[in-house]
This record gives sequence, C-alpha cells and structure tokens, in this order.
Amino acid sequence: MAATTVRNGVDVDRLVQTIDAIKANAGIADFTFRATTTWQEGGASTSEVSSFKHMGQETKHAQTHVVRGDEPDVLLGKDSGPNAVELVLAALGFCYAVGFAYNAAALGYELEELSYDVEGDLDLRNFVGIEEGPRAGFTAIRVNAQAKARNATPEQLEELCRYVQKTSPVGDIISNPVPIRVSLNAA
Amino acid sequence: MAATTVRNGVDVDRLVQTIDAIKANAGIADFTFRATTTWQEGGASTSEVSSFKHMGQETKHAQTHVVRGDEPDVLLGKDSGPNAVELVLAALGFCYAVGFAYNAAALGYELEELSYDVEGDLDLRNFVGIEEGPRAGFTAIRVNAQAKARNATPEQLEELCRYVQKTSPVGDIISNPVPIRVSLNAA
Repeated sequence: MAATTVRNGVDVDRLVQTIDAIKANAGIADFTFRATTTWQEGGASTSEVSSFKHMGQETKHAQTHVVRGDEPDVLLGKDSGPNAVELVLAALGFCYAVGFAYNAAALGYELEELSYDVEGDLDLRNFVGIEEGPRAGFTAIRVNAQAKARNATPEQLEELCRYVQKTSPVGDIISNPVPIRVSLNAA
Repeated sequence: MAATTVRNGVDVDRLVQTIDAIKANAGIADFTFRATTTWQEGGASTSEVSSFKHMGQETKHAQTHVVRGDEPDVLLGKDSGPNAVELVLAALGFCYAVGFAYNAAALGYELEELSYDVEGDLDLRNFVGIEEGPRAGFTAIRVNAQAKARNATPEQLEELCRYVQKTSPVGDIISNPVPIRVSLNAA
C-alpha cells in the first residue's frame, strides 16, 4: 500500500489519477458552474454558489458559498463588499494560484509563497451612458506575481507561470470572447 | 431645500450629479481597481480588496473586503469557497444587478425584485494539460434574469435589461478580449 503524496496541499496521486481518467473519458472534464445573484438595495447584492453539474449530474457544494457585492461610496454604494470588476480581478488571481499550485505539485516543486497583485483600468463613461468613452470593461489588466519554491529555480517558476497563463480558465475568459445569452422573466 | 430622492436604495440626486460631473470632466470616470490574491494551500486562496485609484488618487475602501476561493472535492479542494470561474459568474450577476438598479432608479422604476441565475459551460481538459479539448474558459454563459417593478411594464424592464447588457463592465470583459500582462518576481 503506497502512502499518499501530498504536495502544496494537493493530493498528487489523486491529481494524476484524475488527469488519467479524463484522458480515458473526456466526459469527466465536462462541467457547468453556476451562481445566483440576488439584488438587495442600491449597489448591494448577494451571490450564492451552491451546486454545479458534472458529467450531466447535479453535484452539491459542501456548503452554500455566499459572496457579498457592493459599490464604494464614490460609486454610491455602502461599501459592504467588493464590486463586480474587483471580483473579476480576484477571480483571475484565484485561477492563476490554483493552476500554479496544482501544476507545481505535479512537477514536484514545493511552494513556499505565491501571490498575485492584479489591477485593471476602467473608464466609467460607458456605464453611465456617455457614449464617447472607451469600452465599458477593463482596457488593460496588469498582474504582478510573487512565487517562491524550496526546490525550483526562478527560471522553472517563470516557465510554470507562463504555462499557467495559457491554461487558465479565467485568463481565457478575460482574454478571449465568451458568448453570453440573457433572458428576462419580467413581472 | 430639496429632499433627497432615494429610489431602489440609490441616491438619485447624487447619481444625476455624478453623471453631470463626468460629462463636464471625463477624468472623474477614470478608475484603477485592484485585488491581491494570496495562495494558502491546495486549491485555497484568499483575495483582499482594500483600495483603488480614482482620478489618479489612492482611495481606501471603508474596510478590506476578503473573499475566500477554493475548489470542490471533485477538483481536489476542500470546498471552503467558490472557485475562480464561479466567482466570474457571480461578478457578472453583480454587475448586471448594479446596472439595472441604478438605471431603474434614474428612470423612476421602483424595483420589487431582481435576480440573476448565471451558468457557464466549462471543459477542464485544457486546464489539466490535454490539448485536444476546447478553450480553457467558458464555451457559453447563460443568464436568466427575474425582475419585478411596482411601476414599470414588462416591456420597459426588457428594454432596460438589454441596455444594461450593453453597458455592463463585466459583460464587456467577458464578451470581448481584455489584454492581460503578467510579470513574475520569482525567488
């Protein structure tokens, strides 16, 4: 009986098994994720993440994750949570961090430190209905990453960092167009 | 002295003043938002949102907003928070909700209910290094909105919903490419 290999808090044996399972059956890679956002008042809303679909099957999260969103005072909110675009930046940092930690685990690198400072430039003219401004979303996003590993060179970490950028779901969602279809049930 | 008009929890007078101020000085629309994500272990990270730049000036949030991210068990995490792509869906819901509530306030619509069910399809093959799969990010996002107002017709709410889609920062970030520049400080 082999001992479990846990590196960077990742069960490496299970990671390898999962990748092998996906190679044998691509359906295992098939997910539909969800969030339900309920408006409270003003700039404040609550978002709940409670389940997802995996291989066509409903799967419950261990608990319902609740995120609070709001606008700062200058944007007429009560600042009870980050706003929507700040959450996108946080999500990009999360995605890069998971990709880095999991791949580092697979490569045998023992991480001591990993963080991402993410910032994005936004011009609000479009949002408030002034058409002469630039696009509604970020015009540019800059990421400064810090990584330290017990047993990997800076060059190895740089190579991994580039690989993670290429394979990051959120990186791809931001860098490339995703189609959004909206339907409204108005009463 | 005029009484303050608050509708949907939005200070409508201040909203109109803000839009007028931006019309007179586009610099007021200029923001740089930020989030710092620090990896904890495995799939778990914490993201902090504490300040942003407005008109070139550092501005502090009323408090540091902390969001926890993690992966569910099937993705080898401890499920202590939503994952990165679920947060993107939550952010889209937040952004649509703020846009809808603020614009409804300006139009005089009194909202009774507003929510967004957001879901996105994701194939994890790319993330785990299998190149034959589709893109790393969502291949499609579907949004089902529910809205109810005391004094607006379903047609008026549908028109507003379409307007909000066009002017949503997060909607734009997801629908259109945003350039991301990453630098790593490896030790």
